[in-house]
Amino acid sequence: MTSLGEFGLIARLIRGRIQPASTLLGPGDDAAVVAAPDSRVVVSTDMLVEGVHFRLDWSSPEQVGRKAAAVNIADVVAMGAMPTALLIGLGCPPDTSLATVEELTEGLWAEAGSVGAGVVGGDVVSAPQIVVSVTVLADLGGRAPVTRAGARPGDVLALAGRVGWAAAGLDLLAKGLGTPPEVVGAQQVPCPPYLAGPAAALVGATAMIDISDGLLADVGHLARSSGVAVDVRSAALVVPAPLREAAVALGLDPMRWLLTGGEDHALAATFPADTALLTGWTRIGVVREGTGVYLDGQVHDGAAGWDHFASA
Amino acid sequence: MTSLGEFGLIARLIRGRIQPASTLLGPGDDAAVVAAPDSRVVVSTDMLVEGVHFRLDWSSPEQVGRKAAAVNIADVVAMGAMPTALLIGLGCPPDTSLATVEELTEGLWAEAGSVGAGVVGGDVVSAPQIVVSVTVLADLGGRAPVTRAGARPGDVLALAGRVGWAAAGLDLLAKGLGTPPEVVGAQQVPCPPYLAGPAAALVGATAMIDISDGLLADVGHLARSSGVAVDVRSAALVVPAPLREAAVALGLDPMRWLLTGGEDHALAATFPADTALLTGWTRIGVVREGTGVYLDGQVHDGAAGWDHFASA
Repeated sequence: MTSLGEFGLIARLIRGRIQPASTLLGPGDDAAVVAAPDSRVVVSTDMLVEGVHFRLDWSSPEQVGRKAAAVNIADVVAMGAMPTALLIGLGCPPDTSLATVEELTEGLWAEAGSVGAGVVGGDVVSAPQIVVSVTVLADLGGRAPVTRAGARPGDVLALAGRVGWAAAGLDLLAKGLGTPPEVVGAQQVPCPPYLAGPAAALVGATAMIDISDGLLADVGHLARSSGVAVDVRSAALVVPAPLREAAVALGLDPMRWLLTGGEDHALAATFPADTALLTGWTRIGVVREGTGVYLDGQVHDGAAGWDHFASA
Repeated sequence: MTSLGEFGLIARLIRGRIQPASTLLGPGDDAAVVAAPDSRVVVSTDMLVEGVHFRLDWSSPEQVGRKAAAVNIADVVAMGAMPTALLIGLGCPPDTSLATVEELTEGLWAEAGSVGAGVVGGDVVSAPQIVVSVTVLADLGGRAPVTRAGARPGDVLALAGRVGWAAAGLDLLAKGLGTPPEVVGAQQVPCPPYLAGPAAALVGATAMIDISDGLLADVGHLARSSGVAVDVRSAALVVPAPLREAAVALGLDPMRWLLTGGEDHALAATFPADTALLTGWTRIGVVREGTGVYLDGQVHDGAAGWDHFASA
């Protein structure tokens, strides 16, 4: 990789890429220029570190690139915005193969392309291990951002996307298991319901959050920001067959994955009670006066990452 | 640091900070919202890695934070844009002291504040060494971006800011020397002429570049992007007294620092010949038909980082 040098490497990584119309000036100058038709830009950044957030014996470079893009895109769609552009800061050891860097970048482009965004810039530097830092820009299309703070008593809580899959996949990988493949795959690359975010904003979501830490933990963040209590109804959470299979293989309770597993980047949102929920959204609870998160009316105390967000 | 946890740490780092009016929604939600009054956003990202781009025995955490912000801000002002917001991805070992993280963040805020920008978001993760990835957003205020590609034969080449200081400081530090302190300090924290960038755009700069790799190398990038030749006049580059002093101490030719030293983040720009240059800009050369960069009319071949950009 070093034989190419930084300039040669960057040229390789952007060669032949097609930028969307929102990329007014792409990579190659001191900075890029991206359209912001709304006159506001939604922006978020996340960093993934080899050995901490991913392992190259568990994930391919292409999967790491997809995941790095996905965790960022999930953050801006959770505000109700549409992604326009990604930037990547990539640190890698000097002996990293060009193929590894190209595959990682391929994954980033693929995930960005799935939402119509371009990769408009980046920086490639030497580092002792692979570090991927992604920033995503997004446009609100004239809508107000959907924060975590707008939930009101009487709203319903709804969920879009999968929960528990990535955590189950991690438990399988930690035991050296490769099946069910769709569960392991969920740990390697999340599959966030990107369009459900802007769609929820369009029908009047009052609050929304990207579930990165676990359903109960993140609904707890939403409840705290909104100054409300949220009741989650476990009966609304159906354990999918592959997670049931994984739970049997590992001798675990699959509901723990659904309630506390992170990294799937589902979306949780609250809506006025009379909202007709869009396809892809499932009602899983209600908002009421008070503080904290409850499971079936009880303060939940059985799961890691949960206790310190609750208050009765 | 780990005792605080990620949420506690982020809360500490943003507590009491005053955001500029352009920060419509600051840190604490899934993403931030930043004003983009121009309906275009200029964006750039750079990553600094401990042991590669900085050493904590040579620089304080506050200096690292300032430098991480400065190298990014320089990229967007070189497009003629005004910075509005910064985001930070920060990786650090679990045993990093809270004081170190706070000082680094303090440096980032101080440098961002010097140009009226806020720090609107970030991510703090565990990593084997400190990694700082900064992204900067900026606004063009209705002006066209000043790229590297607009220089025309007959234009003048002008310079704003210092060149050679950071390279001289690095050579001093490598020899264990701490004086002249202003030269060592230039390696620790660059002092880019931020406002000279948008100002140059206002008076009609045809091309501009942030000098991060060295004057001749970066003017070479500008010449190549513009499809022109550029003649740099060495007589226009005066060696400042502290660099002369450093050169005597090290037995080196100080002009080499001025011509090839990077990391000061001066700006080089081209202007139509009849432009009245603003204060802070010095004429250092001319643009003519052809390709490549010349020093006093000769292809320069005496300095690292230079040869492969030249073509007669």
